[in-house]
Amino acid sequence: MNDQPELRRDPVTGSWVAVAPERAKRPIALSGHQPRQRANGERHPCPFCPGQEHATPHEVFAFRDPSSPTDGPGWQLRVVPNMYPAVRPESLTTIAIRDSELLESVPAYGTAEVLIECPEHIHDPKELTDSQFTNVFVAYRERLRMFAGDTRLAHVAVFKNVGAEAGASLGHTHSQIIALPVVPDLLRAELDGAKEHFSRTGRCIYCDLVSEELKDGSRVIATSANFVVIAAFAPRFAYEVWILPRQHQPRYEALSDANANELARLMKRLLFTLDAVLGEPAYNWHLHTTPLHAGEPEHYHWHLELLPRTARPAGIEWGFGCHITTAMPEVAARELRAALPM
Amino acid sequence: MNDQPELRRDPVTGSWVAVAPERAKRPIALSGHQPRQRANGERHPCPFCPGQEHATPHEVFAFRDPSSPTDGPGWQLRVVPNMYPAVRPESLTTIAIRDSELLESVPAYGTAEVLIECPEHIHDPKELTDSQFTNVFVAYRERLRMFAGDTRLAHVAVFKNVGAEAGASLGHTHSQIIALPVVPDLLRAELDGAKEHFSRTGRCIYCDLVSEELKDGSRVIATSANFVVIAAFAPRFAYEVWILPRQHQPRYEALSDANANELARLMKRLLFTLDAVLGEPAYNWHLHTTPLHAGEPEHYHWHLELLPRTARPAGIEWGFGCHITTAMPEVAARELRAALPM
Repeated sequence: MNDQPELRRDPVTGSWVAVAPERAKRPIALSGHQPRQRANGERHPCPFCPGQEHATPHEVFAFRDPSSPTDGPGWQLRVVPNMYPAVRPESLTTIAIRDSELLESVPAYGTAEVLIECPEHIHDPKELTDSQFTNVFVAYRERLRMFAGDTRLAHVAVFKNVGAEAGASLGHTHSQIIALPVVPDLLRAELDGAKEHFSRTGRCIYCDLVSEELKDGSRVIATSANFVVIAAFAPRFAYEVWILPRQHQPRYEALSDANANELARLMKRLLFTLDAVLGEPAYNWHLHTTPLHAGEPEHYHWHLELLPRTARPAGIEWGFGCHITTAMPEVAARELRAALPM
Repeated sequence: MNDQPELRRDPVTGSWVAVAPERAKRPIALSGHQPRQRANGERHPCPFCPGQEHATPHEVFAFRDPSSPTDGPGWQLRVVPNMYPAVRPESLTTIAIRDSELLESVPAYGTAEVLIECPEHIHDPKELTDSQFTNVFVAYRERLRMFAGDTRLAHVAVFKNVGAEAGASLGHTHSQIIALPVVPDLLRAELDGAKEHFSRTGRCIYCDLVSEELKDGSRVIATSANFVVIAAFAPRFAYEVWILPRQHQPRYEALSDANANELARLMKRLLFTLDAVLGEPAYNWHLHTTPLHAGEPEHYHWHLELLPRTARPAGIEWGFGCHITTAMPEVAARELRAALPM
């Protein structure tokens, strides 16, 4: 059946996608696979390099030598406000700008931050040391905990863009943290799907998914003591990968340092195999966790999703939300497993 | 207020987007605007050119001289099955391939067609004559009418990709028609929003939107006797444009030949102003109309949406569905109005 196109339903959101291996054969004169572009003519040192701290807004968080001055060198990881924010902390009210029956808008209250992952001017997160990579996952947690007290905020979007095709505008490896006064769409869709599953079964849908995927095995790429890496059953991009905690954990804020280290080492192995199999694609990863003031739900479970830019979305994706991919997730998982470093 | 970032809610689907004009100033070393790419080294004649009919599957529809043979030259417009289909008519059943409680998939029953818009090897739809452009909109209608009888199908996605960055794989101007056994996500989201509005107000949300936009005027780009062109209030891409019938019309199938001609002339003017203002961007347009077997709903109203590829979506878009754009729709509308040909 593996050469027949299939329509698959995302187990959580219910979105339909088409998996059509035959389309991989179509002419690629104008379309196709997007390799990770290197920065051309990028200045070095860049604004994210040590010694250039004056080129960014004042830092709001850092791992740095105790003796080093704020906004000076001597840091291992640094979080600064985005120079070009989509949302702004000085928008102190959320009083509607427009509020007709149909058209509603509010000032973009929130915070947009850049998390500079290491002092070295490297583009590729798989070149981070294990300790640096662990710092990234610990810093995600610390920023989430910091925002937990702001009742004007609803959700914190943590994500990373690697390569120009994935939306990165600077090469020096960094993540982004955007705190918003609303719960964004895709998270809301997951929460709705998870709630529906819980009301039907009394169980967390992600716990059920982990259990079913481990039993089936065909989409499992890697495992560690506390995490599972699977090829998404209904991917939006070929080779889409999900990383989930094995145990129920609604909030990323609860991640222990030891588990951050385990997650970092697993993620690095995943990046090595993705780059080997796909030839260094551009990609995004993003963290989905329970919204800030939503307690500790029994039905929702944090996870990371990694989307390699393996195709250029077209009218069917943008116009209808129906993604068409060319690699069966079971085939993708087999290839990634085979190339996985020890 | 026009330099302050704003969070806007799509009036129909309820999706939140951020409009942040300041982000237009960020460095574009790695990111930014995607001009329309020309085919490099594309063969001419291409498989869509007259005389090359043997290079495509057998035609299923055409406007051609009565004396000309099927699958020979002499046509003005030609619809052929996609060589690399995402869905296939020979998948005759919709019996589940997988049907666990969580993971569901069905054979991709359906039809994927390519609508070759003219015999001339041109890339740019604004070079179509008025009569050729009218043929395109009439042919959309004819294909929709043809699929209306197939109860295994739920919806027909009609769309067009212009430029490699918008997912086009061949340059010769063409549209795509994909008939699916499910109602795709974004259409379902619109239908849900429209139904909710109707149950609250007793009116079609698109009729209300047309009326409110015409009264407000700030997002109106162009009008004709029967259609309105507006800048989307909560765009996913800067300069996103919607084209709506002024009067309630649930199904595109009801479009008259005269209105197809009026729509074609309006659309050409829109393409001229978009290309002038944005420097020939890649773009998609897609047709949203009532699903095949859903009658003539009072709450839903067909329309076209045009999405120029004015940015590279990143982690916030792919991971959270929260689009960030840099041009206020009211500013975009003013620029497009100013550059609109007579």
